[in-house]
Amino acid sequence: MSTFGTLFRVTTYGESHCKSVGCIVDGCPPGMELIEADIQPQMTRRRPGQSALTTPRDEKDLVQIQSGTEYGVTLGTPIGMLVRNEDQRPKDYSEMDIYPRPSHADWTYLQKYGVKARSGGGRSSARETIGRVAAGAIAEKYLALAHNIEIVAFVSSVGPIHLFDPESTPASEPAFQKLLSTITRQHVDSFLPVRCPDTVIAEKMADLIAQYRDKKDSIGGTVTCVIRNVPAGLGEPCFDKIEAKLAHAMLSIPATKGFEVGSGFKGTEIPGSKHNDMFIPHPTDPLQLATATNNSGGIQGGITNGESIYFKVAFKSPATISVPQETTSYSGEPGTLAAKGRHDPCVVPRAIPIVEAMAALVVMDMVLMQQSREASRDMLGKAKRVIPELNKEEEKVAMKVAETVLEAQGQ
Amino acid sequence: MSTFGTLFRVTTYGESHCKSVGCIVDGCPPGMELIEADIQPQMTRRRPGQSALTTPRDEKDLVQIQSGTEYGVTLGTPIGMLVRNEDQRPKDYSEMDIYPRPSHADWTYLQKYGVKARSGGGRSSARETIGRVAAGAIAEKYLALAHNIEIVAFVSSVGPIHLFDPESTPASEPAFQKLLSTITRQHVDSFLPVRCPDTVIAEKMADLIAQYRDKKDSIGGTVTCVIRNVPAGLGEPCFDKIEAKLAHAMLSIPATKGFEVGSGFKGTEIPGSKHNDMFIPHPTDPLQLATATNNSGGIQGGITNGESIYFKVAFKSPATISVPQETTSYSGEPGTLAAKGRHDPCVVPRAIPIVEAMAALVVMDMVLMQQSREASRDMLGKAKRVIPELNKEEEKVAMKVAETVLEAQGQ
Amino acid sequence: MSTFGTLFRVTTYGESHCKSVGCIVDGCPPGMELIEADIQPQMTRRRPGQSALTTPRDEKDLVQIQSGTEYGVTLGTPIGMLVRNEDQRPKDYSEMDIYPRPSHADWTYLQKYGVKARSGGGRSSARETIGRVAAGAIAEKYLALAHNIEIVAFVSSVGPIHLFDPESTPASEPAFQKLLSTITRQHVDSFLPVRCPDTVIAEKMADLIAQYRDKKDSIGGTVTCVIRNVPAGLGEPCFDKIEAKLAHAMLSIPATKGFEVGSGFKGTEIPGSKHNDMFIPHPTDPLQLATATNNSGGIQGGITNGESIYFKVAFKSPATISVPQETTSYSGEPGTLAAKGRHDPCVVPRAIPIVEAMAALVVMDMVLMQQSREASRDMLGKAKRVIPELNKEEEKVAMKVAETVLEAQGQ
Amino acid sequence: MSTFGTLFRVTTYGESHCKSVGCIVDGCPPGMELIEADIQPQMTRRRPGQSALTTPRDEKDLVQIQSGTEYGVTLGTPIGMLVRNEDQRPKDYSEMDIYPRPSHADWTYLQKYGVKARSGGGRSSARETIGRVAAGAIAEKYLALAHNIEIVAFVSSVGPIHLFDPESTPASEPAFQKLLSTITRQHVDSFLPVRCPDTVIAEKMADLIAQYRDKKDSIGGTVTCVIRNVPAGLGEPCFDKIEAKLAHAMLSIPATKGFEVGSGFKGTEIPGSKHNDMFIPHPTDPLQLATATNNSGGIQGGITNGESIYFKVAFKSPATISVPQETTSYSGEPGTLAAKGRHDPCVVPRAIPIVEAMAALVVMDMVLMQQSREASRDMLGKAKRVIPELNKEEEKVAMKVAETVLEAQGQ
Repeated sequence: MSTFGTLFRVTTYGESHCKSVGCIVDGCPPGMELIEADIQPQMTRRRPGQSALTTPRDEKDLVQIQSGTEYGVTLGTPIGMLVRNEDQRPKDYSEMDIYPRPSHADWTYLQKYGVKARSGGGRSSARETIGRVAAGAIAEKYLALAHNIEIVAFVSSVGPIHLFDPESTPASEPAFQKLLSTITRQHVDSFLPVRCPDTVIAEKMADLIAQYRDKKDSIGGTVTCVIRNVPAGLGEPCFDKIEAKLAHAMLSIPATKGFEVGSGFKGTEIPGSKHNDMFIPHPTDPLQLATATNNSGGIQGGITNGESIYFKVAFKSPATISVPQETTSYSGEPGTLAAKGRHDPCVVPRAIPIVEAMAALVVMDMVLMQQSREASRDMLGKAKRVIPELNKEEEKVAMKVAETVLEAQGQ
Repeated sequence: MSTFGTLFRVTTYGESHCKSVGCIVDGCPPGMELIEADIQPQMTRRRPGQSALTTPRDEKDLVQIQSGTEYGVTLGTPIGMLVRNEDQRPKDYSEMDIYPRPSHADWTYLQKYGVKARSGGGRSSARETIGRVAAGAIAEKYLALAHNIEIVAFVSSVGPIHLFDPESTPASEPAFQKLLSTITRQHVDSFLPVRCPDTVIAEKMADLIAQYRDKKDSIGGTVTCVIRNVPAGLGEPCFDKIEAKLAHAMLSIPATKGFEVGSGFKGTEIPGSKHNDMFIPHPTDPLQLATATNNSGGIQGGITNGESIYFKVAFKSPATISVPQETTSYSGEPGTLAAKGRHDPCVVPRAIPIVEAMAALVVMDMVLMQQSREASRDMLGKAKRVIPELNKEEEKVAMKVAETVLEAQGQ
Repeated sequence: MSTFGTLFRVTTYGESHCKSVGCIVDGCPPGMELIEADIQPQMTRRRPGQSALTTPRDEKDLVQIQSGTEYGVTLGTPIGMLVRNEDQRPKDYSEMDIYPRPSHADWTYLQKYGVKARSGGGRSSARETIGRVAAGAIAEKYLALAHNIEIVAFVSSVGPIHLFDPESTPASEPAFQKLLSTITRQHVDSFLPVRCPDTVIAEKMADLIAQYRDKKDSIGGTVTCVIRNVPAGLGEPCFDKIEAKLAHAMLSIPATKGFEVGSGFKGTEIPGSKHNDMFIPHPTDPLQLATATNNSGGIQGGITNGESIYFKVAFKSPATISVPQETTSYSGEPGTLAAKGRHDPCVVPRAIPIVEAMAALVVMDMVLMQQSREASRDMLGKAKRVIPELNKEEEKVAMKVAETVLEAQGQ
Repeated sequence: MSTFGTLFRVTTYGESHCKSVGCIVDGCPPGMELIEADIQPQMTRRRPGQSALTTPRDEKDLVQIQSGTEYGVTLGTPIGMLVRNEDQRPKDYSEMDIYPRPSHADWTYLQKYGVKARSGGGRSSARETIGRVAAGAIAEKYLALAHNIEIVAFVSSVGPIHLFDPESTPASEPAFQKLLSTITRQHVDSFLPVRCPDTVIAEKMADLIAQYRDKKDSIGGTVTCVIRNVPAGLGEPCFDKIEAKLAHAMLSIPATKGFEVGSGFKGTEIPGSKHNDMFIPHPTDPLQLATATNNSGGIQGGITNGESIYFKVAFKSPATISVPQETTSYSGEPGTLAAKGRHDPCVVPRAIPIVEAMAALVVMDMVLMQQSREASRDMLGKAKRVIPELNKEEEKVAMKVAETVLEAQGQ
């Protein structure tokens, strides 16, 4: 369906060739300052070649808040938002009425809905993501204000060009971890048009994309995203583990084919003794623990541990290309399709704010869920711990005993 | 929360040290024959070293249907199921009360719930998956009866040992596609204990696991799953694309770190012209189309196209190991933890029925959703197609025109 | 929250003083003809003194479809709709900033959201119901096309003036049942402005409302609604019985205080032997049964039996009145509030299309749920009946036996 | 479906003739002491003729907690509970296999599920409510501990015998309001077997029930319920107003036909000037307001105002009676049905704990929702009020101005 989230719930509407695209955000906390200018920057970053930092000369995709605020403050009621579509007329008769585009949604939408429509395919288009980005911007504002949470995504590969060696497991690599802990959106946008935070590699990526554009072909890539300052305790086992919701969110973005969190696929090759993130005293909070490494990607047992969450998303090469393709018509006749017009040869640079938005929607919902749990628990007075909590002295004695046992076992 | 699905809805309960684990399945179609013997084989495959094909001598994890059937036929009402836990007593005082296990749920459950419990960690244990497998077995039975759908998972890697070269993109490889189209659970189980369908590689994997077991360490791996005979039209854009729900389902299984569908991460390096799956006339159904390749993994625009769905899931190395680990106690004191007891050095062989179950739950829910849509549409009479549908003659004329245009453009 | 329904899902936004009010309808069957003219009549009936049958001279509350249709046919994708608010400025400082209106939402919205807003109260206003009516009109169109379902509401009381004696139980009264089986919206609107289908009583009601209007006071009333041609089998036990969903829907309409279905409150005084609706052969369908009476209101065990559903809804007298009220300010100071402006002295005539809309939303969702179940069951082939189904001959023998037993028991 | 609630979510299973009935409670706050003895009293009150206060000699319907607690403290994980059914065998062939019981679920379950089952009807039986009562008892415990909330239901009518004159509107009657503010479960149970808190009327009711029992007939009645110490701010506009959720909950109980809150149906006859509940300074909390009357039933605009919630529920006379009924068989043949066995001639006394349980489930879910909102708002710092909040001095000046205006208008 077109709704995402439980307590912070987003419902979107709209396809390419209709009057507007938009969304309703239900469950935004009341009393937060919110105006269009809080939302527009991410909308603008979604457009080709735009940075959040430059003044958008191109006044397109302007979001309009319809409800849910008064005098620039949220009321707690649903926030309606919309962006007008400029050209609402479906295009004239074309080769796309004869051929379903290979690896595109044309054919499957017809199978699903039984309606052969131009706008139907439009619901599967990138334009559908506008509502997600608008809703995500609201979530991001709350998360920043209430928890200082920062969400930053960047391009980590285009075709075979990778920012970090994909054969290594960067999870434990200091350079990768340092990048995650410092990168900002401003820095990412300074590498436009590719948004890969390395001058040399970004240039190579831009060249590769240009080559595919010139060949009327397309190429895929990956986006890496980090979420910093996440409170411990987020995630709802067992089915709504936070990595499960993130995977759901990311694979709902058009053209995605994969998701990995923390050490991911390559991490499966590392033995537990190296993969486990040992606990260390927390650098600033004596009541918390931190971990020495972060192969877990900030998540243990589906619940955040307070370290940064990071994950990578795979985007396939766009299906709509102008190079002629030998395919088959709707009625089963072989023929050649060459889509007209200019098409995006690589989506990852524009996918950045969409990945950030979906990440924000997941974290926001989980924050509201956990705040409810903590508040409900606090009403009971001090929560009982069902096995006795040891004080430091008792714990030391117990550790001594355990060590003796270990020695006796020859370990 | 502990509920999964919309129309076929599973709710589970239970942790390691409680009376029973179980689930309620709501939304099972009425009138289907169902007895415990339909469910037990997958329950048994979940246990170490068991095949669905051998008579289980070890009468453990016996599922008991509580409700929802009469004389062995489903009523359409909720099906309650449970499996008794054998040892319900939480263990005696141990080193795990002092140290949260690194990369395990001990610490994060305490952060989330504020209750330090032995069973708390138990909810994050593999025992929680019993309810999933029981529910999945019911879904599988319906899918097989109503649509002849087959779901088969197998081990595709253990540590660095892969069934197919991970640097290639097996999506288009004939050997890989042939395996997907023919593999059965019986064949998979003939490679016990590893469940990797290649005698030589399975042996290497078994050796590797044995090495880690002997070192009291652990290792990860991947599971690949194929779903055959999927009707076209499943998946609910935009947030509940079928790959999004599959990703959600798989990342909710304990110890998972990644998911990729179709060509996945490596597929991002292939240009669109090669990655696109060209349409061909359907081999058996003149009203359908098929695709020449299947990089899409059976999904276009979030909706099934009738080809096989296949995906891969990454499982990290188990966190609970007996090799001593330098970590920190709950109260922040450094020390050494060495978990006692025998622990599973690699989970992928046992994860097979869990992956199959979660896949079945996703497909079942999507089937019921789509059946509702198709039935509702059919009540309206012949659905109107909003752009004129061409007959074969008209289409040929249109194709001729399109080709002339292409030629004129020098393509 | 602001979402209603599972498979036919409506999400609304908007309050009095914002740019627009609107909704997103998700789950509408594809392939249905739908334009604004299908929706506008009910929107217009919601406005004071308007009939669906007269051309609305007053071009207000014009609904605009934003998405989800192409060439006037539904695509199956979300349908966005909105109605612009005319005066978007919150009013100037007034006595309502000092006093929370008694029995109104002013005080409780402040308690809930912690934000003192003019528009906050606006979310509780009748204007919020616009989105419901728009969504309901789409549901009604489908229900009429697919099942010939008719939904008609009318005013059954204003203050102490009742269309039928409230001390009797009209459930079994032939005049009441005949009215239910024949009444149309056109007939109801011929009794404007009160919409009570009896000339004499409607006039009395109009007089009573005028009296309260002149006294700057207000009065309540009831609305009765009938749903005809409902298929048997709708309703989702145990929590989502169809009467439970109807009660939920009706009590979510502003100013409602009660709901009763079938024989309702007075029916509790009738013994089972008279209250039970005896089965009779169905007049037209030999495979169905009908009932001789309809105290059940078309629902048995939470599931429709094929007879008409009917229910009554209580609306209290409007809280906003101009007669001075001795009350207390937000800060606890006693004083006198007299709301300025013209206020609706009785809401029941305008509530008619809102009651119809909410009824349509409930039935539509239940129809889609049941269509999914029936389709899923049909895929299994002939459903097994778990106790042997008798043919007519066998049944007669069994009845003979049963009668003999009854006689032997002296009954 | 068989799930109720969003954050405190109950899923039930079970029918008459299966192994057990039970439920899973998801979302219970962690750290609360909970053992079977907290739940059993309401289970016992559900059984005929039992009081919560007497030691149950009859050890039936014993609830067993399966999971979610350790050492008697809730873990925050799902709580599985079950009650064994004693006689699991469907009964032998009987007249009920020939005739669907009039006004019972036999016929409609067959229409819905297409399965003719004895247990199918069983899902519609009172036995299904066991899971509700068990879950409600957990909610009640939390509400009492965290908010001192008290929920008490009692019988307010049996047939035509009413505790309060139904032609009056007891909402404003001091005797009724006093009863609501003082009644306890202990007091209610002192009027067993009828549970109507008036010695004379309870005796009349008992006599009436006995008469119908002797005639093998049945009779209906009403239950009134009060919820005290409800925090202001509960209820989720616009669709999930608290009265809407209460109506949903109550109409989901078997045999219910009506719901009214506060002044209810009779209140529609009272003009706004008398019906409005004027605000008064709160007797104990200077930051709150109270109301002088409580026609609203503690709810304004769908949100609690801090006064007591009270409502009335109509239960029809039970459909299963032994007096012979002229009806029609499943295959359309007229005949006479006389149900064998002993049947409950009036359900209202036993319905008391079920009404209380469903009320608790609604309030609990709303409490958790509102706690999340308040916590999320509090993280933003002091919430901005979008219209200027006046201090007492400013307010007095504004009131003076408003009064001058009123005088000038001659009011």
